[in-house]
Amino acid sequence: MTEDTKTKIEKFLEERKQEIDDTIRKYIPENLSHEHMEMLVGRARYEYDIEAINNSITKPIWDFLSRGGKRWRPALFMLVAEAMGADMEKVKDFAVIPEMAHEGSIMIDDIEDNGELRRGKPCTHKLFGIDIAVNAGNTMYFLPMLILIKNRGNLDENTTIRAYEVFAQEMINIHFGQALDIWWHKGNTDTITEKQYMQMCAYKTGCLARMAAKLAVVVSGGSTEQEEKIGKMAESIGIAFQIQDDILSASSEKFQTKKGYGDDITEGKRTLMVIHALGKANEKDRKRLLEILNLHTREHALIDEVISLLNKYDSISYAKKFAKELVNNAWSEAESTLPKTDAKKRLKAFVDFLIERNI
Amino acid sequence: MTEDTKTKIEKFLEERKQEIDDTIRKYIPENLSHEHMEMLVGRARYEYDIEAINNSITKPIWDFLSRGGKRWRPALFMLVAEAMGADMEKVKDFAVIPEMAHEGSIMIDDIEDNGELRRGKPCTHKLFGIDIAVNAGNTMYFLPMLILIKNRGNLDENTTIRAYEVFAQEMINIHFGQALDIWWHKGNTDTITEKQYMQMCAYKTGCLARMAAKLAVVVSGGSTEQEEKIGKMAESIGIAFQIQDDILSASSEKFQTKKGYGDDITEGKRTLMVIHALGKANEKDRKRLLEILNLHTREHALIDEVISLLNKYDSISYAKKFAKELVNNAWSEAESTLPKTDAKKRLKAFVDFLIERNI
Repeated sequence: MTEDTKTKIEKFLEERKQEIDDTIRKYIPENLSHEHMEMLVGRARYEYDIEAINNSITKPIWDFLSRGGKRWRPALFMLVAEAMGADMEKVKDFAVIPEMAHEGSIMIDDIEDNGELRRGKPCTHKLFGIDIAVNAGNTMYFLPMLILIKNRGNLDENTTIRAYEVFAQEMINIHFGQALDIWWHKGNTDTITEKQYMQMCAYKTGCLARMAAKLAVVVSGGSTEQEEKIGKMAESIGIAFQIQDDILSASSEKFQTKKGYGDDITEGKRTLMVIHALGKANEKDRKRLLEILNLHTREHALIDEVISLLNKYDSISYAKKFAKELVNNAWSEAESTLPKTDAKKRLKAFVDFLIERNI
Repeated sequence: MTEDTKTKIEKFLEERKQEIDDTIRKYIPENLSHEHMEMLVGRARYEYDIEAINNSITKPIWDFLSRGGKRWRPALFMLVAEAMGADMEKVKDFAVIPEMAHEGSIMIDDIEDNGELRRGKPCTHKLFGIDIAVNAGNTMYFLPMLILIKNRGNLDENTTIRAYEVFAQEMINIHFGQALDIWWHKGNTDTITEKQYMQMCAYKTGCLARMAAKLAVVVSGGSTEQEEKIGKMAESIGIAFQIQDDILSASSEKFQTKKGYGDDITEGKRTLMVIHALGKANEKDRKRLLEILNLHTREHALIDEVISLLNKYDSISYAKKFAKELVNNAWSEAESTLPKTDAKKRLKAFVDFLIERNI
């Protein structure tokens, strides 16, 4: 990918971001009025305390949204819909469905991990309290369906049902993926296989990318085969993202500014690289690797020792190759279901852009 | 209501409970197998770690479900559906939709309130950790839609969409109701009006009863008018429940075994009774009432003083009357839309049973 293409895509993302946030604002404005409340939750049987709602729902949500984020899932939705030849005016609001769920999922994740910082500021539960954060994050989980309710006239009945089904199924799946991560996080890591790790990534980080792509196919009137293959391609991007994060955490110095030095190693995380190395290593190295991982150490010398063991067994380059091939293969399958258009070329460039970051 | 009728309804609830739990078990079994996983989240692209899922999802969920609960929302669903003349074989699984959401909402509520005990055992987050509890509770929020996915063939397309819409809208509403309660809980109680308190109840405790009734009407092929009026009747039951809880907390000694003595008063909660008394009281009593409520005291003498102030201004009997009239009026409106059948009589008896408990 040339620097010129990269710059173009970055500019495209920046421009779309404004549009995407304006669409989110349509469904959850920063400051609710009576009219907004009626749109959101119907006419009051008695009387709304709007100030309370603004303080406990819209304020934490917009505090979070305004911190940034790339909004690449809605961009992926739009590029897939364009490649499918959709009527963009009719479907564009659906682009924010996976994004709202994604933003909600980070707020909730941070509570589950008891995180401190997110996007350079204290996590929502640190600023507003666990009660408000859980409730606001969960509100973001259900607001996407408001978009389906409000735009019912834009889709035929069968398509509407398929859209609900995609949303519902992926929201269930993501909780199963998160359940794996949580359980392993508690130290239950002795028997994790490479396949199980991949499955966790597919569900924890692949779900919402897959939701974006599948929704785009469905609302564009696509076939089940297109839904399946383009969905799998997006899921693969999500998995590749996770693997890239793992790699960055074990190799790049740049990463130290985002997280602590070798945080995954301190945490004892069984990443694809670690699982690979444990499978390849001789008995002595294997024992040593497990020993350090189970120490939960912050000592740089020990962290560096793990990194050199991962390098000794080529586990870092194995993971890099794995991620690239995963997306390339999935792209080949997906692209065969799409007509040859400029929009498809733009989608391909975007996919390349997403997986090439920093590797 | 005669003792005989009461006993009959209690027996009916007990029998249905088994059936209801068996239906829940169909969609989220206590011990997942590979077949269950495929039913729930599709075929694995890689490989599931089922033990991890059982430990972090099904175990906490069934630990919670097995503690009890009356399951009156599914019973209400079934009685409404019967009164609507539904094909019960086709619709009965939908009865557990509001129940699953309800059970999830208590698990989540307990996290938000940092509760200690629920149904005689430590709250889920105390037993399993906040991470597992949030994730398992939220899983219960989305599993209801799996029932819509799996039973798609039982409903026509328009009905299926209406069912999704009812579920989605009530799930949004309940988070807005909870947002009010959370915000007021943080001490922002100076300006709460009676109408605002009623609205909070309608959304926090009325939503899932309303969901049960509306869903029953919708899947039985009912009209928009029936959905509206029978939904409002169920919402009124939910509101009456909340008012009853408030009353019990301020009057009955029986209640002390469930919660602490006058917990609502210690908390300084602006219940319907408190709002009523604040509106009626002379300046001196008003000041004294606010003074004690703002003390957050556990002293019995002060709590008793509040109770006697509430009695002085007839606020407890006002609340009792309010709750009864609310449900009676809503029932009159709802019943006019239902055909005259034995099923309707059973529904009426059940409604009476629900609102007569302990008042």
